[in-house]
Amino acid sequence: MEESKSSVASQLMSVKRISGKSYGQIAEETGLTNVYVAQLLRRQAQLKADTAPKLQAALPGLTDGLLQEMMKPPLRSYDPNLIQEPTVYRLNEAVMHFGESIKEIINEEFGDGIMSAIDFYCSVDKVKGVDGKDRVVLTFDGKYLPHTEQKSEHMVSRLRLQGD
Amino acid sequence: MEESKSSVASQLMSVKRISGKSYGQIAEETGLTNVYVAQLLRRQAQLKADTAPKLQAALPGLTDGLLQEMMKPPLRSYDPNLIQEPTVYRLNEAVMHFGESIKEIINEEFGDGIMSAIDFYCSVDKVKGVDGKDRVVLTFDGKYLPHTEQKSEHMVSRLRLQGD
Amino acid sequence: MEESKSSVASQLMSVKRISGKSYGQIAEETGLTNVYVAQLLRRQAQLKADTAPKLQAALPGLTDGLLQEMMKPPLRSYDPNLIQEPTVYRLNEAVMHFGESIKEIINEEFGDGIMSAIDFYCSVDKVKGVDGKDRVVLTFDGKYLPHTEQKSEHMVSRLRLQGD
Amino acid sequence: MEESKSSVASQLMSVKRISGKSYGQIAEETGLTNVYVAQLLRRQAQLKADTAPKLQAALPGLTDGLLQEMMKPPLRSYDPNLIQEPTVYRLNEAVMHFGESIKEIINEEFGDGIMSAIDFYCSVDKVKGVDGKDRVVLTFDGKYLPHTEQKSEHMVSRLRLQGD
Amino acid sequence: MEESKSSVASQLMSVKRISGKSYGQIAEETGLTNVYVAQLLRRQAQLKADTAPKLQAALPGLTDGLLQEMMKPPLRSYDPNLIQEPTVYRLNEAVMHFGESIKEIINEEFGDGIMSAIDFYCSVDKVKGVDGKDRVVLTFDGKYLPHTEQKSEHMVSRLRLQGD
Amino acid sequence: MEESKSSVASQLMSVKRISGKSYGQIAEETGLTNVYVAQLLRRQAQLKADTAPKLQAALPGLTDGLLQEMMKPPLRSYDPNLIQEPTVYRLNEAVMHFGESIKEIINEEFGDGIMSAIDFYCSVDKVKGVDGKDRVVLTFDGKYLPHTEQKSEHMVSRLRLQGD
Amino acid sequence: MEESKSSVASQLMSVKRISGKSYGQIAEETGLTNVYVAQLLRRQAQLKADTAPKLQAALPGLTDGLLQEMMKPPLRSYDPNLIQEPTVYRLNEAVMHFGESIKEIINEEFGDGIMSAIDFYCSVDKVKGVDGKDRVVLTFDGKYLPHTEQKSEHMVSRLRLQGD
Amino acid sequence: MEESKSSVASQLMSVKRISGKSYGQIAEETGLTNVYVAQLLRRQAQLKADTAPKLQAALPGLTDGLLQEMMKPPLRSYDPNLIQEPTVYRLNEAVMHFGESIKEIINEEFGDGIMSAIDFYCSVDKVKGVDGKDRVVLTFDGKYLPHTEQKSEHMVSRLRLQGD
Amino acid sequence: MEESKSSVASQLMSVKRISGKSYGQIAEETGLTNVYVAQLLRRQAQLKADTAPKLQAALPGLTDGLLQEMMKPPLRSYDPNLIQEPTVYRLNEAVMHFGESIKEIINEEFGDGIMSAIDFYCSVDKVKGVDGKDRVVLTFDGKYLPHTEQKSEHMVSRLRLQGD
Amino acid sequence: MEESKSSVASQLMSVKRISGKSYGQIAEETGLTNVYVAQLLRRQAQLKADTAPKLQAALPGLTDGLLQEMMKPPLRSYDPNLIQEPTVYRLNEAVMHFGESIKEIINEEFGDGIMSAIDFYCSVDKVKGVDGKDRVVLTFDGKYLPHTEQKSEHMVSRLRLQGD
Repeated sequence: MEESKSSVASQLMSVKRISGKSYGQIAEETGLTNVYVAQLLRRQAQLKADTAPKLQAALPGLTDGLLQEMMKPPLRSYDPNLIQEPTVYRLNEAVMHFGESIKEIINEEFGDGIMSAIDFYCSVDKVKGVDGKDRVVLTFDGKYLPHTEQKSEHMVSRLRLQGD
Repeated sequence: MEESKSSVASQLMSVKRISGKSYGQIAEETGLTNVYVAQLLRRQAQLKADTAPKLQAALPGLTDGLLQEMMKPPLRSYDPNLIQEPTVYRLNEAVMHFGESIKEIINEEFGDGIMSAIDFYCSVDKVKGVDGKDRVVLTFDGKYLPHTEQKSEHMVSRLRLQGD
Repeated sequence: MEESKSSVASQLMSVKRISGKSYGQIAEETGLTNVYVAQLLRRQAQLKADTAPKLQAALPGLTDGLLQEMMKPPLRSYDPNLIQEPTVYRLNEAVMHFGESIKEIINEEFGDGIMSAIDFYCSVDKVKGVDGKDRVVLTFDGKYLPHTEQKSEHMVSRLRLQGD
Repeated sequence: MEESKSSVASQLMSVKRISGKSYGQIAEETGLTNVYVAQLLRRQAQLKADTAPKLQAALPGLTDGLLQEMMKPPLRSYDPNLIQEPTVYRLNEAVMHFGESIKEIINEEFGDGIMSAIDFYCSVDKVKGVDGKDRVVLTFDGKYLPHTEQKSEHMVSRLRLQGD
Repeated sequence: MEESKSSVASQLMSVKRISGKSYGQIAEETGLTNVYVAQLLRRQAQLKADTAPKLQAALPGLTDGLLQEMMKPPLRSYDPNLIQEPTVYRLNEAVMHFGESIKEIINEEFGDGIMSAIDFYCSVDKVKGVDGKDRVVLTFDGKYLPHTEQKSEHMVSRLRLQGD
Repeated sequence: MEESKSSVASQLMSVKRISGKSYGQIAEETGLTNVYVAQLLRRQAQLKADTAPKLQAALPGLTDGLLQEMMKPPLRSYDPNLIQEPTVYRLNEAVMHFGESIKEIINEEFGDGIMSAIDFYCSVDKVKGVDGKDRVVLTFDGKYLPHTEQKSEHMVSRLRLQGD
Repeated sequence: MEESKSSVASQLMSVKRISGKSYGQIAEETGLTNVYVAQLLRRQAQLKADTAPKLQAALPGLTDGLLQEMMKPPLRSYDPNLIQEPTVYRLNEAVMHFGESIKEIINEEFGDGIMSAIDFYCSVDKVKGVDGKDRVVLTFDGKYLPHTEQKSEHMVSRLRLQGD
Repeated sequence: MEESKSSVASQLMSVKRISGKSYGQIAEETGLTNVYVAQLLRRQAQLKADTAPKLQAALPGLTDGLLQEMMKPPLRSYDPNLIQEPTVYRLNEAVMHFGESIKEIINEEFGDGIMSAIDFYCSVDKVKGVDGKDRVVLTFDGKYLPHTEQKSEHMVSRLRLQGD
Repeated sequence: MEESKSSVASQLMSVKRISGKSYGQIAEETGLTNVYVAQLLRRQAQLKADTAPKLQAALPGLTDGLLQEMMKPPLRSYDPNLIQEPTVYRLNEAVMHFGESIKEIINEEFGDGIMSAIDFYCSVDKVKGVDGKDRVVLTFDGKYLPHTEQKSEHMVSRLRLQGD
Repeated sequence: MEESKSSVASQLMSVKRISGKSYGQIAEETGLTNVYVAQLLRRQAQLKADTAPKLQAALPGLTDGLLQEMMKPPLRSYDPNLIQEPTVYRLNEAVMHFGESIKEIINEEFGDGIMSAIDFYCSVDKVKGVDGKDRVVLTFDGKYLPHTEQKSEHMVSRLRLQGD
C-alpha cells in the first residue's frame, strides 16, 4: 500500500515537472496554500471533489486515474531519516527548544488546550528582513482545542452503556 | 517543575487514600468519568473552577493550596517504562495491531479525519460477558476532526500577512 | 512468510474494493464487528470455518485459495512507523497518558489483574455529541484476567516434575 | 510511587536475609512456587489475604505494615538494563531465537491463541543431566487463550451501545 | 551545570509568578516577542545588556544576581520526553509530515538553502478563524541561508594553510 | 547469505506442509524435541549427520541439497519486530518481569552461575489445568554454568604468553 | 526520489573513475575544495551554473543529463550506519567529546552564537607532523551566526500580522 | 541494590588506592588474572572462599564486612554510556567488525558452537611489537560450547513430565 | 556501493567454498592471521599488492577482477542485528562487562591511552584447557596509543594558520 | 566515580571563573591549544606532570588536591543529550553529511587508514571571511593510521602462543 503511495507521488511529481509550474503558481491558480499543494502532490492530503477540476486545470497532465487516487484518504507518513535534512532538522530544533515556551503562552492566552494539527493551515512566505535580506516565514495556523472536562452527562456513549 | 508535579500528585493520592473512596465513587459524586477523576488526581488534567467545590465536597482533605495547584494547566507526561506494565502493554498492543483497521473504518464512516484525543472522553466499565465472566470495557469517545482543506481565503493569518 | 502475508492482504483488499462494500456492511452481513472484519482482510485474525461461508457470501470475489489462506493462524505484526499516522498516534497518546489511571480503576473495580487483548472485542461507532457534532466511539472490551497466585499444588506441570 | 516500591522491596529482602531462609524453603512452607515467593518479596505480585498468615509464619520479621503493603496490586516493572545480566540475557536470547517455533507449535497443538502470562505459573528446578551434571529447569506454565472471534452478538458492550 | 540552569529557571519563574504578568505583557513592555520572553525566563536565550534594564523594569523581582546569570550564553537543551506533551507533539507532527513540502518550496522560492534557526524570530498569536473560533498562529521567521559553494579562493582558512 | 537462509527455510516449510505432519509427529519419529524440529526447519539449528537419515525418513521431500544446507552451522538471528507477536511478547514479558527472581533462585540453589542457552533443551507441552482447561507448558532446560574464578595457573593461553 | 539520488551518484562515481582523476586534482582544476568536489559527486551539494563548465572540462564524461541532475537542490542525507565506519566514528567521537569545550570557546571569542554548517567550507589536507609522520588536517570553516535577540520591531512578519 | 553495589565498589577502590598496589601486583600475589582482580574490586565477580584470605593478605584494608559483600553473587551490569569511552569503543568496534569472521573460524575449527563468556578467562598483557613499540594484548579464553542437539531421550526434565 | 560490496563478498565466499580450504589453511599459505583472511574475503580489509599473488596461489579461483576489487579500501560496516548471534553477543558482553577493568589496567601498565583497533592484529586459536576440553582463544593485539598532550608548538597545522 | 568527575570539573570551572581568564589566555600562557585547556578543566584529558606548574601559574587557584585529580587518566564521556545543543549538532551534521567524502579523500591521499582521534590536536580560531565577517575555524589534526595488514610473523603475541 505504502509502495503504491510512493509510486503515485512520483507520477504526480512528473506531472508537475512537465507543467513547468512552481508550487506557488499552482497555489495561486487553485486557491490553496503552497504547502498544501505540495502535500497533495506527495499524497499527504486528500484532494476534495470541488478542488479536483481546479487542480486539473492547473496541471493538465493529471489523468482521471491519478485524480481518483488523490481523492482517497492517504496513510500519512514520513521517512524517519528526514530529520537528517538540514531544513527539516532546524524546524524540529526550533519546536523542541521553544516547545515549553509555546505551550505556556497558549495556556496563558487561550487556556488549557492545544493548537490542532488537523484543523490546520500551513504556508511558506518570502519577506525582506530589516537588513534587506531574504527571510523565510513559516506560518502554522491551527484551531485552538481545549482539553474537555470529561463530565459523564456529556459523554453520550457512556450514557447508552449504562442505560440498561 | 516535573518534580513538583509528582509531589502534588503524591499528596493528592494521600488525600484519596484517607477518604477511603474509590475513583468510581468520586466520579459519581462529582459527575465526572472515573478515568478523568484519576487523571485529575495525578495532575494529568486541569481542575475547572466549577468542579472544584464538588471535588472538595467528595474529598474533604483537599486544601485550598492543592486545589490551586490542580487548577493550573498541567504538563502532560508519562514514564516511557510504563509500557512494561501488563495492563498498559495490552492496550498499546491493541492500538498498534488494530490501528490501520480503525483508521480505515473512520475513513469509511466519517471521511478523511481523526478521532480527537483532546475533545475526548474515556471511561472504564465492568460488564458480564456471555459466559457470565467479568469483562473490562474501555471506551474512547472523541470528536471527529476532518483534515482541513487548506484554502488561502480561509487562512486568516495568511491574508493578514499578504494584506499589506 | 511476512511477504506472502502482505501479498494475501493486498489481494483481499482488492476483493473488498471490487465488492463496493464498506467494512460496516460486511460486518452486518457476517455478524462480526467492523474492526474484526478489517483485521480479517489484512490477515491479522484467523477466519473460523463456520464464518467462512458467510464471508464468501458477503464478498463473492473470495476464492477458495484465499479462504484457505485466511484460515491459517497469522503472524500478528505492524509497521513500527504506523505510530506516525495521526489517528494511530492519538490512540497511543491516550493509552500512554491515561494508562496508570485505567490500571488503577481496574484494580479498584476488579482486583489485581488486566484486560485481556486476546479474549477481546473492538468496534468503532459513530454517535452525535451533545453539540450535535459527529464523534468516534472506540470500544475495547476484554475479559478480566486476574494474576494467578502461583500455588504449587495448582501447578500441574510442576507436580509431575517432582513426582519421581 | 515507584520509589516506595523499591524501598518496600528492600525492606522485604532484609526480612528474608535475617530469617536465613532460601526462596525454596519459604516456598515449601507456604505452598507457593519458588519464583512466586521471590516475586512477592520484590513487590512484583500481590500477596493474597489467605496466604498472608502462612508467609508471616515463614518470615516472622514481616510487620503488619509490610504485609499491608504487600497486599496492594503492584505496578509491575523492571529496569531495562536488566537485559545486561547474563542469566536474564540468555533467557531472552532463547525466547527470541526460539519464538517463532514456539508460536507455531502452539498453533498446531492448541489453535490460534497464546500462552497467558497472567494465568501463569513459573518455577525453577534443579535436575541432573544425562552426564550427571547440574541443570537448571525453568518451567513456564500458562493457560491457553484462544484469540476470540469477534461476533457482534457476543460483544455485550456493543449491544448496549446499539440498543437505543 | 545543567542543574544550576534549572534552578535559575525556577527562580525566574517565581519572579514572573509574583509579578502577576503574562508573557504577552512582559513582551509588550520590553519590545521582545512573547516566545522570546519565555525563552529568557527558562534560560534558553541570553539576555542582552541593553535589554536588561527593560526586563528589570517589567519584572522588579529580578535581582542583579539573576540578571548576571541571564546574561551568560546558555547551554540550549530540552527533555527528550517533552515530545509526549500534546502541544509539542502536534508541532513536531506538522514539521515531520510537511517537512519535504516546506523544503521544496524554499528551494523553488529562494534556492538551495535553509531557514536559519539562529537568526530567527518566533511568536504565538491569537486570531479568529472564518468560523469565529479561536486559532493559534505560530510564526517561524528565519533568515534564508544559501548553502555556500565551497570555492578554495573564498576559504580564508585554507589559503593560510597552503600559503607556506 | 541471510537471504539464502530464509529461502532455504521457506523450502523446508514447503516440504513439511506437503508431508502433512505436525512438528510433534516429526519430533516423535526422529527422537528430537518438538521445538528443535521447528528450529531445524527454519535453519536456526544445525542438522547432525546421524539425525539426517531419520529426518529424511520423516520428511521424504527433503532433497540431498536441502540436507546439505541443513548441516551447515547457521547464523542464528531473528527479526527484531518479532517482539510484536503476542505469543512472543508474553514470553519476553515473563522473562523480564521474573528475571531477577529467577537469577536469585539459581544463585541460591546452584551458586554464582547461569543457565546455558547453548547446552540447552526446549519443549512445548499440553496439559490440563486444575480447572480442566488447556495449558501450555514451556520448558527451558539448560546446563548450569558457574562463572569461573580466573586463576592464572588455569588460564592455559596466558601461561604460554608469559612463558618466554 | 532517494533511489534516483543514489543512482545518479553511482553514475557520477563511474565518470570520475573513468577520468582517472583524484578529488584533489578535480578540486584544483575547478577551484573548489576537495571535500566539496566529493559532495557534488554524491549529490550532497548543488552544482552552480557557473561551475558546471569547469567541472565538465575536468570530467569530460559528464553528460548534459547528469549536469542537469547535479544542478537540482539535493535532499541531503546519510545512512545512519555510516557511524560504524572507523574514520567517521572517530570524527564523531571528537565532536561529542570536545563539543562542550568548542562551544564555550566560541562563546568566549565570539559571543552567544554558533558556527554555521551552511555558510561553511570543509577541506582535508596532508601535512607532516613534528615526528615527520603524515597527519590528516580536517578544517571546518563556518560563518559565525549570533543567536538573534527577538525584538518585535525587527520581526517583519509579525509587524504585518499585527498591522491590521 | 544497584546503589549498594556501587557504594561497595567505591569502598573497595579506596582500599586498593591506600594499598598503593596495581592490579598486576595484586594479581601476582593472589594467583588471579589482572582483569579478574579488577572485576572483583568493582563487584563484577564473586570472591571465592579459598581466595578471600589471599586477597586480604594483598589488601590489608579489606574488612570482614567488605569480604562478606564480595562473596555474594553480584548482579552483573554496566553503564550503557561506557561505549563512549574510547578504549571500550575500539574493543566493541573490533568485535562487531570482525564478528562474523570469528564466528566462521570457530565453526571451521570446532564445529557449531560458541566461546563461553562464563567459563572464561581474560587478561591484559604488555608486549613489544616488531617496531619495538608497546602493544596491548587482550586475551579472551573461553570454553568451547557446542549447541546441543535436543534429543528427547537426553532431556531429563521432559521425560519426567511425560512419565505419567 | 554497499550492494556491490556484498555481491563481491558473496563471490569471494564461493571461490573459497570451491577451493575446499579453511581459513586456517589459507592463513598458513599466505602468512596472514586466520581472522584477517576471513576479513579479506568479506571485503572488510584491503588486499595489499604484495599479498595478492600469495592469495591467488592459495585460491586459484580468484579472477583478476576480484583481486582488483579486493585492493580497494573498503567501507567497513556490519549489520547491527549481528549482535543477536550468540557468538558475537558473548564477545560484546565480555567487552562491556569487563570494559572498565581493561581500561584501568591499560592506564596502570601503559599510561593514559588506548589499544588501537587500526594498528591491530586478531586471531582465533584452539587450545586444551586444564580439564582437557577445547577452548577458544581470541587474541586482540593492538598498538598502544597515548592520548597526545595538545601543545600548540607541536600542532603543525595551527602554526601555519597563525603564521600570517 | 562519574559524580566525582563532575564535581572536580565544577570546582575547576570556579577556579577559572575567579581567575577572570579566557581559555585563549590560559592556552597562550601554558603553550596548549585552547580546546585542550577546556578539556583539562572538564576532566576530559590528563594533566601531564611537566605542564602542571605552568597551569598552576596561569590559574593560581588550583590547589594541589585539584592538580592531583587532574593528573589521573579520566573516564572520557559526554551527555548524549549534548547533541541537542545547536553548536554541537551542526558539527555532528557536518561530520555525518560529509563523512563518506572525507573518508574517500583520506583513502586517495594517504591510503587505507584513518585520522587518529587519540594522537590528535584540536583548536578553534577566529578569522575574517572574504566578506569581512567573523568565521569560526575548527581544526582537527590527527595522525594518519594505516589499517595494518595482519601478517602472522608480525603478530608478536601470536608467535608466542604457537611456540610450544
